[in-house]
Amino acid sequence: MWFVFVNTMPRYEILSADAITVLDKGWRRIVSEIGVQFAKPAAVELFAKAGQRVDGEVVYLDPEFVLEQVAKAPREFDIQARNPANSVHIGGDHMVFGAVYGSPFVREGSVRRDATLNDFHQLCQLSQAFPQLDSAGGVICEPNDAPLDSRHLDMIHALATLTDKIYMGNVVSGPNAADTIAMTSILFGGRAAIEATPAVVSLINCNSPLRWDDRMLDAQFEYCAAGQPVVLTPFLLMGAMSPVTIPAALAQQLAEALAGIALAQLIRPGCPVIFGSFLSNIDMQSGSPSFGTPESAIGLLCTGQLARHYGLPFRTGGGLNSSQTADAQAAYESLMTLLPTFLAGTNFVMHAAGWLEGGLVSCYEKFIIDIELLRMLEVEFTPLEITEESLAFGAHLEVGHGGHFLGAEHTMGRFRTCFYRPLLSSTANFERWLRLGGKDAADRAGELWRAKLEAYERPPLDDAIRAELDDYVARRRRELGD
Amino acid sequence: MWFVFVNTMPRYEILSADAITVLDKGWRRIVSEIGVQFAKPAAVELFAKAGQRVDGEVVYLDPEFVLEQVAKAPREFDIQARNPANSVHIGGDHMVFGAVYGSPFVREGSVRRDATLNDFHQLCQLSQAFPQLDSAGGVICEPNDAPLDSRHLDMIHALATLTDKIYMGNVVSGPNAADTIAMTSILFGGRAAIEATPAVVSLINCNSPLRWDDRMLDAQFEYCAAGQPVVLTPFLLMGAMSPVTIPAALAQQLAEALAGIALAQLIRPGCPVIFGSFLSNIDMQSGSPSFGTPESAIGLLCTGQLARHYGLPFRTGGGLNSSQTADAQAAYESLMTLLPTFLAGTNFVMHAAGWLEGGLVSCYEKFIIDIELLRMLEVEFTPLEITEESLAFGAHLEVGHGGHFLGAEHTMGRFRTCFYRPLLSSTANFERWLRLGGKDAADRAGELWRAKLEAYERPPLDDAIRAELDDYVARRRRELGD
Repeated sequence: MWFVFVNTMPRYEILSADAITVLDKGWRRIVSEIGVQFAKPAAVELFAKAGQRVDGEVVYLDPEFVLEQVAKAPREFDIQARNPANSVHIGGDHMVFGAVYGSPFVREGSVRRDATLNDFHQLCQLSQAFPQLDSAGGVICEPNDAPLDSRHLDMIHALATLTDKIYMGNVVSGPNAADTIAMTSILFGGRAAIEATPAVVSLINCNSPLRWDDRMLDAQFEYCAAGQPVVLTPFLLMGAMSPVTIPAALAQQLAEALAGIALAQLIRPGCPVIFGSFLSNIDMQSGSPSFGTPESAIGLLCTGQLARHYGLPFRTGGGLNSSQTADAQAAYESLMTLLPTFLAGTNFVMHAAGWLEGGLVSCYEKFIIDIELLRMLEVEFTPLEITEESLAFGAHLEVGHGGHFLGAEHTMGRFRTCFYRPLLSSTANFERWLRLGGKDAADRAGELWRAKLEAYERPPLDDAIRAELDDYVARRRRELGD
Repeated sequence: MWFVFVNTMPRYEILSADAITVLDKGWRRIVSEIGVQFAKPAAVELFAKAGQRVDGEVVYLDPEFVLEQVAKAPREFDIQARNPANSVHIGGDHMVFGAVYGSPFVREGSVRRDATLNDFHQLCQLSQAFPQLDSAGGVICEPNDAPLDSRHLDMIHALATLTDKIYMGNVVSGPNAADTIAMTSILFGGRAAIEATPAVVSLINCNSPLRWDDRMLDAQFEYCAAGQPVVLTPFLLMGAMSPVTIPAALAQQLAEALAGIALAQLIRPGCPVIFGSFLSNIDMQSGSPSFGTPESAIGLLCTGQLARHYGLPFRTGGGLNSSQTADAQAAYESLMTLLPTFLAGTNFVMHAAGWLEGGLVSCYEKFIIDIELLRMLEVEFTPLEITEESLAFGAHLEVGHGGHFLGAEHTMGRFRTCFYRPLLSSTANFERWLRLGGKDAADRAGELWRAKLEAYERPPLDDAIRAELDDYVARRRRELGD
């Protein structure tokens, strides 16, 4: 059973038309008066050729030109998975979820340690096992025990073979991106197949404020040239990478993302893109990043509304938090982000399972907690059907005054499916809970992920394709000297 | 500094006009064809005198008659606190919060035990100490070591003297309600003073489905006769006290609440009321109540919209959960209810701090977690000001490309107040967190409530009034034989 979530509930929109006008003026002034830095000559050249004023690496953009480019990006598009049942649609009411991305550490229970390739494999397997995730994501943890120069090959190989869902490409360098595209071409039967329908989506972060770095741009050039979607994401921790007011961060986010999207269209007109947002704030006492904050939730809701205003699919949210363990703080901060993610109808959600400690840690128990949150929210954001029949008048006639509905015919016919069934949450009373070992949610989550790994089955893959992938990895590893 | 929260953010409304029409027909059919049972002859007589058809204890209500009575209830009203700065307004965009209500047990850390009068006092003190709570509520825990017949006197005395906020009346019986009114009259300088502006609000639960019990009705008669507001609350755990479909539960909730509100208006036309909702579901496997479920969140959002449709202030929500400890489940289930509470703009929120274990436990650590959630949500539901100035263009000019805003003039001028400052949440990095003892959120909450109790100061009260309250309690305790 596969589950692609389509959120047809109302959007929660908090920006007035006037506010949108102010923010629209804001990014226009930034890109035209301050400009955006692109640390790659080929990028600057593309803008210059298109008539934009450049000064060294800084491009001063005409806002109307930016919007003309943005208009070339598709409002919605598909990404194919090697199992066609797992292909996804990006945009509209569709919500696509991937797991945590980029963590150098893992936590299992009370142990926090360097992440390994084995962790990477296990987290891929868990991502494959839960239908709430449409993707393991990309760097689901950093496999520190694999050689640095070639570990992107190990990661893409694992994502392509241990899951049959969509995955994210490596963005450390242009050559890494080229390897990702080559391996994805093998998996899908050639580059033409993935140019026809994209098969890998990649995260391109801005070095905010207002600077796109060379290596990320190298990767963007590879992916866009191949027609593979990129998530162009300003990386904004207010107070550090942006001013401390939310409106200023939103205007900056528009300036950076729209400039990056314009570049994508110059590289290859019509290239699919996702308007990215990673927007929170630092703790002004410690300088540490804060997640699950009120400011980030407000920013998230506004971002969704702005992306729709400019006709772009968008990324926000996830199960973000600053906590060190899978405790109450981890849970409430994550939901403080995930619930607005659903209210905003986010199209592409990274970090939706397993994120802990400001993203430094991929946590197995937190992974299970987040899956429970996604399961609950998917039910919560499914429209009610309110019809005469749903009122169950007959049940009221049957039960009358002061009775109970446990044995009513209406109840008996529906008891298996009428309510959300939890994966992790317990309703056991105190005595039963004690008999079951007195385990809190994190302890129970520990049992659940281990059982899920036990039951994991590798999705089938054609032997010839697997051999070709293996050969590619072996050859490139030799070339890279690892 | 006192904080009354006014929620001027948009409401999140999910019912279509057609859906409201279906639900409106639903309650009309229930009250007219099945009727509502009132287990108190005086109540049945009032309905009969007003022209409604009665059969024993069952009253068959004309829906138009019900709405005529409902229209007599004020849309908004005030409740005075003995400290005028703590008086509240009920209705409109105002949100009033009270702590957990009715728990026989308490939990502090790993210890779960019978609640005592000392716990009652301590929880009153904590409620007084946090401005996020407008009230300790009423039965903030059950003081099991106080004599059963007179413990309501101990509770009202504590609420009236250890806090200077509004409080809730005892509803165990008519005489207990009369004692509450008598003590409140002493506190406010006579019954005329509290009839002019009400000073105590009381929870009247329906014995759902469709039955109002005698002792609750006795209490309602006392309070309504004195012009004190009552929160008329269907008690709906879908699957037990209502059918298993949300629309059926919503129609039943309307039938029960509107019938109870009609009675209030027959007792005293114009008596202030609050449309109450306590709506969740049972776990169909175990029969235990479930809280923080998707179904309860959906029901909550719908309830707010329906209460507004009938022009009534309403109660929903709180920090509800089924967890046994102050763990991740406690946190996410609570927020799964509290965030929709803000989205719905609930006017009167019970159980907003300290609720654990399906309401069986008042938990000190959970109290602190909930205060943190309220603090965050109050910031999150404060409208953004988006102006030209808020865009901080000067900061962008100052910082330019790839720099940081930590030392920018715009940041320096705002760093103390620009972001939410947590009470409980930690952003400490791993090493610092370890040095600080490696404490999870529940551990830190334990330190916070103890420190807050240490710092508690009793609000001033006129000696003569205190003496009169003491005398009243002593006399009534003798009369009750305790």
